Amino acid sequence: IATKLPAVGTTIFTVMSALAAEKNAVNLGQGFPDFNCDPKLLEDVTAAMAAGHNQYPPMPGIPALREAIAGKISALYGHDYSAADEITVTAGATQAIITAILAVVRAGDEVIVLEPCYDSYVPNIELAGGSVVRVPLVPGTFRPDFDKIAAALTPRTRALIVNTPHNPSATVWTAAEMRKLEELLAPTDVLVIADEVYEHMVYDGAQHESVARFPGLAARSFIVSSFGKTYHVTGWKVGYVAAPAPLMAEFRKVHQFNVFTVNTPMQHALAQYMAEPKPYLELPAFYQRKRDLFAAGLAEKTRFKLLRSEGSYFQCVDISAVSELSEAEFCLWLTREIGVAAIPLSAFYGNGFDQRVVRFCFAKKDETLIAALDRLARL
Amino acid sequence: IATKLPAVGTTIFTVMSALAAEKNAVNLGQGFPDFNCDPKLLEDVTAAMAAGHNQYPPMPGIPALREAIAGKISALYGHDYSAADEITVTAGATQAIITAILAVVRAGDEVIVLEPCYDSYVPNIELAGGSVVRVPLVPGTFRPDFDKIAAALTPRTRALIVNTPHNPSATVWTAAEMRKLEELLAPTDVLVIADEVYEHMVYDGAQHESVARFPGLAARSFIVSSFGKTYHVTGWKVGYVAAPAPLMAEFRKVHQFNVFTVNTPMQHALAQYMAEPKPYLELPAFYQRKRDLFAAGLAEKTRFKLLRSEGSYFQCVDISAVSELSEAEFCLWLTREIGVAAIPLSAFYGNGFDQRVVRFCFAKKDETLIAALDRLARL
Ligand SMILES: CSCCC(=O)C(=O)O
Ligand SMILES: CSCCC(=O)C(=O)O
Repeated sequence: IATKLPAVGTTIFTVMSALAAEKNAVNLGQGFPDFNCDPKLLEDVTAAMAAGHNQYPPMPGIPALREAIAGKISALYGHDYSAADEITVTAGATQAIITAILAVVRAGDEVIVLEPCYDSYVPNIELAGGSVVRVPLVPGTFRPDFDKIAAALTPRTRALIVNTPHNPSATVWTAAEMRKLEELLAPTDVLVIADEVYEHMVYDGAQHESVARFPGLAARSFIVSSFGKTYHVTGWKVGYVAAPAPLMAEFRKVHQFNVFTVNTPMQHALAQYMAEPKPYLELPAFYQRKRDLFAAGLAEKTRFKLLRSEGSYFQCVDISAVSELSEAEFCLWLTREIGVAAIPLSAFYGNGFDQRVVRFCFAKKDETLIAALDRLARL
Repeated sequence: IATKLPAVGTTIFTVMSALAAEKNAVNLGQGFPDFNCDPKLLEDVTAAMAAGHNQYPPMPGIPALREAIAGKISALYGHDYSAADEITVTAGATQAIITAILAVVRAGDEVIVLEPCYDSYVPNIELAGGSVVRVPLVPGTFRPDFDKIAAALTPRTRALIVNTPHNPSATVWTAAEMRKLEELLAPTDVLVIADEVYEHMVYDGAQHESVARFPGLAARSFIVSSFGKTYHVTGWKVGYVAAPAPLMAEFRKVHQFNVFTVNTPMQHALAQYMAEPKPYLELPAFYQRKRDLFAAGLAEKTRFKLLRSEGSYFQCVDISAVSELSEAEFCLWLTREIGVAAIPLSAFYGNGFDQRVVRFCFAKKDETLIAALDRLARL
């Protein structure tokens, strides 16, 4: 059968997690915690199931959860979304992103992605019949290059995908960068898909600059976030999207015919759990400590050159001083021979651009990070 | 913003459920049970969560669940699928269907749907850039008309969607009908998407004729089913798709970039629960009793003309003797004035074809069915 996605294989995350399991390696590849979530959240699911919340929820999500989401965005970023018309609960962030793309990208439309980027964006755009326009972030620093973005804008540009805190580079856009984007797009009707799944993981006292803080961006944006990342339940597959009502109306037209609705008991539990902001307000301190533990160990025990992790739960390192293998070969070798799985940044570029950088996930128990460091010390 | 789906509003199921809630009507519209599932299944979820099964599962689903699904299909329909390469767990049947369509339907391809049909098929095909070819089932009997299907086949036909047991008509395809379809497609390379979500609800001693029983169909089919329907947990959003490896490879390319994976604790619980076939083997008797209770009440208390419900959890009735309103108007009126929600069959036709038939869902507690009958007696 002729394939519609000739360039697509199995995601790098699946490949590396499978190899890590096979080789009994410490898996710092795919981005997920190896510790369990707050038992309180699990009790809330059990209670919701026992109360009979096991049938279809309302299509856009249960009202209590949508209201909790709108309340959080308002409290943190000062933008008020209507829970009724501007918030939809999704089956994770990936499903939110493809649904937004399918809803607004028409055959022949151009969509700008800033490389390196998450590996679902490009096939999502292709499935919608759009053309992918790749603009690199500045190699080495991974900052946005506004001249390059400006040069990529055409009358056919339908949307631009922004991801901050950034996967894989762990950079966080500054307010000045967000304002530049706002100005750049002001004369256009380009839409923004803002992948903000690591919104609650920004370090060293910096703050997450959500598009919701910038009225000129908020008015044209789908904001995507993930409960899986925030509450340590990546396997629950619950996320959300916020967007102005006219955009959300189009989103829901597709959403209802994609997944229709999202797991009911998990929605009830999350609504309950969100009543208390402590878990996400404490997240920066929680992960900053793990980042520092891991980074200090790498600095002490390896010859990797560390890139600064400003946000997300990733730490990137330059491998030049350690190996001459390509990033991808190095990650396979590291998993097989050293017993630590990592992700090559080349997997986030369409052309496999190799800048000698690989990504580790530090959303792990301290003992896991220490075990990985012990193995990496052998390098 | 210009819409990509101009014909699409909010699904009829959402509209009617919202109206039913507002009017405090007995909701026999949207297809979901109003009773809770087996407490054993809930305990299995709680145990899976406590055991830490809250992070990303493998992309195609956890092996234990895929093996249980392959085992069930083999036992019931005599076709062996490889759990590794030919089964994928999905976020419900709707997500399975759109993913199959996005995976194989290219711009300009034709896809045949047999009307009346579930309302996601047509927008799914349109989002993939395909052309919808509508072939009516025989009005009144809702049997397939093979001359009409044959006439609709062209060199551009990419796929045909079959749904048995059929929503909304509650007919079940016979083995002779399946064989006719098999013969008709034999000289073509047309793919089949077989929506078999009501596979375990076939009555009066008949059996479900899965495409898996017919080698010429199985070789070209995506079979879609739903744990929500089978185990009374429509809100969990877990289903699956089975297909030959080359088709499944294309399916997974899209699946991994749509939802990526499906709720982990629910997958573990379902795998556990499927070890015992009793729950689905007892389902025909369980629902046939409800069908008979409801049908007998309708026959006794109303002037509706009953269509035969051969399978699914729906009972269709002809409203001609009761009302001159259109199906859609009648359902709104019935919800508002009589306090019982139903679904008009016109909602399952692209042109709103009105044959004076509406659909009731009998997947309800006996007391709910009796309360509905008491209200309907006022007609
Ligand atoms: C959806 S699997 C990958 C998880 C993740 O976000 C990552 O590892 O980059
Ligand atoms: C996905 S909502 C509708 C449930 C259903 O299958 C129906 O009512 O037809």
